[in-house]
Amino acid sequence: MTEYADAGVNIDEGNRAVKLMSEAVASTNTDAVLSDLGAFGGLFSTAGLAGDAVLVASTDGVGTKVELAARHGGWQGVGADLVNHCVDDILVQGARPLFFLDYIATAKLVPEIVAEIVTGMAGACRAVGCALLGGETAEMPGVYTDGSVDIAGTIVGSVSQAELWPRTEALQAGDVLIGMASDSPHTNGYSLIRLLLDQNEPTAEMVDWLLTPHKSYLGDVDALRAAGTEPKALAHITGGGFLENIPRVLPADLGASIDLGSWDVPQGFRTLVEWGDIADGESFRTWNMGIGMVVAVAAEHVDAAVALGHAVIGRLVSVDEGGERVQLHGDWR
Amino acid sequence: MTEYADAGVNIDEGNRAVKLMSEAVASTNTDAVLSDLGAFGGLFSTAGLAGDAVLVASTDGVGTKVELAARHGGWQGVGADLVNHCVDDILVQGARPLFFLDYIATAKLVPEIVAEIVTGMAGACRAVGCALLGGETAEMPGVYTDGSVDIAGTIVGSVSQAELWPRTEALQAGDVLIGMASDSPHTNGYSLIRLLLDQNEPTAEMVDWLLTPHKSYLGDVDALRAAGTEPKALAHITGGGFLENIPRVLPADLGASIDLGSWDVPQGFRTLVEWGDIADGESFRTWNMGIGMVVAVAAEHVDAAVALGHAVIGRLVSVDEGGERVQLHGDWR
Repeated sequence: MTEYADAGVNIDEGNRAVKLMSEAVASTNTDAVLSDLGAFGGLFSTAGLAGDAVLVASTDGVGTKVELAARHGGWQGVGADLVNHCVDDILVQGARPLFFLDYIATAKLVPEIVAEIVTGMAGACRAVGCALLGGETAEMPGVYTDGSVDIAGTIVGSVSQAELWPRTEALQAGDVLIGMASDSPHTNGYSLIRLLLDQNEPTAEMVDWLLTPHKSYLGDVDALRAAGTEPKALAHITGGGFLENIPRVLPADLGASIDLGSWDVPQGFRTLVEWGDIADGESFRTWNMGIGMVVAVAAEHVDAAVALGHAVIGRLVSVDEGGERVQLHGDWR
Repeated sequence: MTEYADAGVNIDEGNRAVKLMSEAVASTNTDAVLSDLGAFGGLFSTAGLAGDAVLVASTDGVGTKVELAARHGGWQGVGADLVNHCVDDILVQGARPLFFLDYIATAKLVPEIVAEIVTGMAGACRAVGCALLGGETAEMPGVYTDGSVDIAGTIVGSVSQAELWPRTEALQAGDVLIGMASDSPHTNGYSLIRLLLDQNEPTAEMVDWLLTPHKSYLGDVDALRAAGTEPKALAHITGGGFLENIPRVLPADLGASIDLGSWDVPQGFRTLVEWGDIADGESFRTWNMGIGMVVAVAAEHVDAAVALGHAVIGRLVSVDEGGERVQLHGDWR
């Protein structure tokens, strides 16, 4: 899978990394995978895809969360972060993951770190039936600072064209917004978190929480559908938080009215807001504040969502052109 | 296409970069592209694929060539480098590109540099009918050294399962190896080149040559097939050079006998070898030495390849277990 020599990596260390990670990678193989580790490209059969399948692809990094991982350990976690972020990004369009490829670059290759990252990625891939199809590891001392590692990943999934989300034409004022709980800030807002950590004394518990991986919502969305609730639209709360991600899946004449008192904002976010004395306009534009995926459903489907443990956090409202697309009401403090 | 806020990028600069690059990205759209810039994931219809299509995917970087680009300018070139490297990696398995996604990360976002890189990628994508389907740009001051930029890309292509290369069972001793000329060291061996540049005074011409982008061989291979010559196997001469890449596509009982006097090694490689007083065993393991793609064809097909301007650089030979897989003969000096 990985062409170490390509980027000037020490061949022996590269080979050692491949050896350490090969079992984890192989564990993600699905029936559609036709290639072995070491091929120029990974091979994936389309035989299992629907006749009207659309491929949905996304590339992402985990941002400055890698710095926190470098300082405190937790490389498996950022590997899982990367996969799950990608899984959720394509889930928003209704796609299920097919395969994933990674890029790991560093100033000096440490095979054990690469293997930990890949083990974390492989675990997250296995959990959603996604093959870890390939990757590249690069050693670039002049480009990366000492001890730093950056990771990026690309996911390819598929969805039948008839089932693509959002179902924009079905969205209407009065639809209910369901909030699915997050496990941490996931992979967003870590530049601000880094500044706050520099100025404050985090507890070990706080550091653990900050390193908790991005959650995959594939299982939650599957459960919602199994209960008869077909989502009309999903918004993945990533960079830009509540305020910027919800409008991305709404038509121009609809906005979201959010009741800030409708879910328990986790203690970690409370601590971050307190440390920085941060206004709602900034915190809800930076972090997920405890809700990692927002799902718009018809009002009659609320009970099923609540029975699954999700919060009703607001509804869709009509907005005039140029009006506020996300209106925050109530108090979460 | 690009979620700037995700990785803590300055939003205004991120938006400016998107504006600068959006036209270039849009110019790569093919009929199969169903999504617009700004979607969570890029959408690509499978309607045009063969019934037995296999997806072939590869992730790559361009290694420390980015440092040379940072020092001398030439960001469009490394954008093209990245795409063409990926195109060639999947061409080895017979695949034609469908779509490409990029990751660009830096200590401090300079929209003009991002736009230049993306313009270079878009041009290389257009040339091979590949859609630039998505990407991510990240600003990570603590991870990247000042002024550094790293880029990684993922390509997804397809090939009918019946036409997958290498056709291992068809390979036999006596098959001829065709060498397709390279344009530069492409994207490999730049860590050693960097050391040599530090110790010597390169001419402007030498720097230009070193920054010449990785060549895409898709057109050359198409022309070969149009002339009736069906390749049995292709080896993309990337990291590990001649010595490591040719065996990757050969069965264990076949090796390659290469006549080093059969093509003109470009002056740039001669200069590098002279600067470092580098033995053939190292130079042919590090660089492409003027041949970027090696194609194995049946002996009766040699004339067509030669008529297209390619060199006959050697043949396949039987080797005993544990024998030398790539045998270098003759003198190129």
